[in-house]
Amino acid sequence: MAKINISDNIFAFVPITTQTILGSHVQGKANFMALGWLTRINFKPPMLAICVNKGNRSCDGILENKQFSINVPSKDMVAVTDYTGLVSARKTDKSGLFEVFYGQLEAAPLIRECPVNVECRVVESVELPTNYCFIGEMVGVHADEEALTDGAPDPDKVKPFVLSMPDNRFWALGECVGKAWQEGKGLKQD
Amino acid sequence: MAKINISDNIFAFVPITTQTILGSHVQGKANFMALGWLTRINFKPPMLAICVNKGNRSCDGILENKQFSINVPSKDMVAVTDYTGLVSARKTDKSGLFEVFYGQLEAAPLIRECPVNVECRVVESVELPTNYCFIGEMVGVHADEEALTDGAPDPDKVKPFVLSMPDNRFWALGECVGKAWQEGKGLKQD
Repeated sequence: MAKINISDNIFAFVPITTQTILGSHVQGKANFMALGWLTRINFKPPMLAICVNKGNRSCDGILENKQFSINVPSKDMVAVTDYTGLVSARKTDKSGLFEVFYGQLEAAPLIRECPVNVECRVVESVELPTNYCFIGEMVGVHADEEALTDGAPDPDKVKPFVLSMPDNRFWALGECVGKAWQEGKGLKQD
Repeated sequence: MAKINISDNIFAFVPITTQTILGSHVQGKANFMALGWLTRINFKPPMLAICVNKGNRSCDGILENKQFSINVPSKDMVAVTDYTGLVSARKTDKSGLFEVFYGQLEAAPLIRECPVNVECRVVESVELPTNYCFIGEMVGVHADEEALTDGAPDPDKVKPFVLSMPDNRFWALGECVGKAWQEGKGLKQD
């Protein structure tokens, strides 16, 4: 099969990730922004990395307060999730979009409508050319009881959606195609 | 709906991400490892963050060579992808598992069987308690011609799979549930 070098379109590759809503405080008020660039970054203690464009007010708010939340919307929240990424806090007050609650952190607003909510305290901020990477220790996780199986969020119940770029499509999860740390056992030569 | 504080099970939340295979050189040889903790981290120039446990030989190799590759397997590669995460380079030579090719970087082995391949040069290494976060500038992207639409990898053709934790399931993409930066326009009050 022919491989094509598409390095002239180097923006072409972006890993698919859960579409989330980032919560922060901006000038003392809750603010929300669609966020698709995030990953777990440390196993123990559990930490998340989120990557925010420097032009966003959320970036200013997190630099100031060193706290943020990650909220996981269900696929029935596609429109409102997308809306939080279309309008800027510079022009539109997004504090009333959702029913907000708080856990331990006073500047990490959590969205009641989202089945899973995580509150994070920033332990390191990495400045890059156009974005900040905020590394946050997870200090609290909250979830709808209906979204849990054996005490952990279950994708079959949370019904999250993921974002692919640069085609910019949202996807529901499809069929389960295997179990991690299981499927490969048949290839072991022990 | 009742919110449950599941902070006693704080490992419970992990964002869903593309399951990839990390390529690196370890003691001069190609090595591969299943990797699900990654994200785009900077828009321009395009950079990826990957998060690797310090106990992995891949971590040593990347610290030494400052280069790595990200390879995106199709869902028909679930077993071999998982296998790369089950066996350690300490005990098993994984250099012959795939047909390897190289782009610009001599220590970023690319997997021909994977429809999308990215070569990265490390620009920053962030040491955390149990993991390293390597921030890599994307210097080359390669793809199967059959995986592209308008010059960019198309999820409908790449057929990637994603990993959810802590249930450790691999998922194909399901139905498209909307377009990003589009679905929310109806909520704008202009």
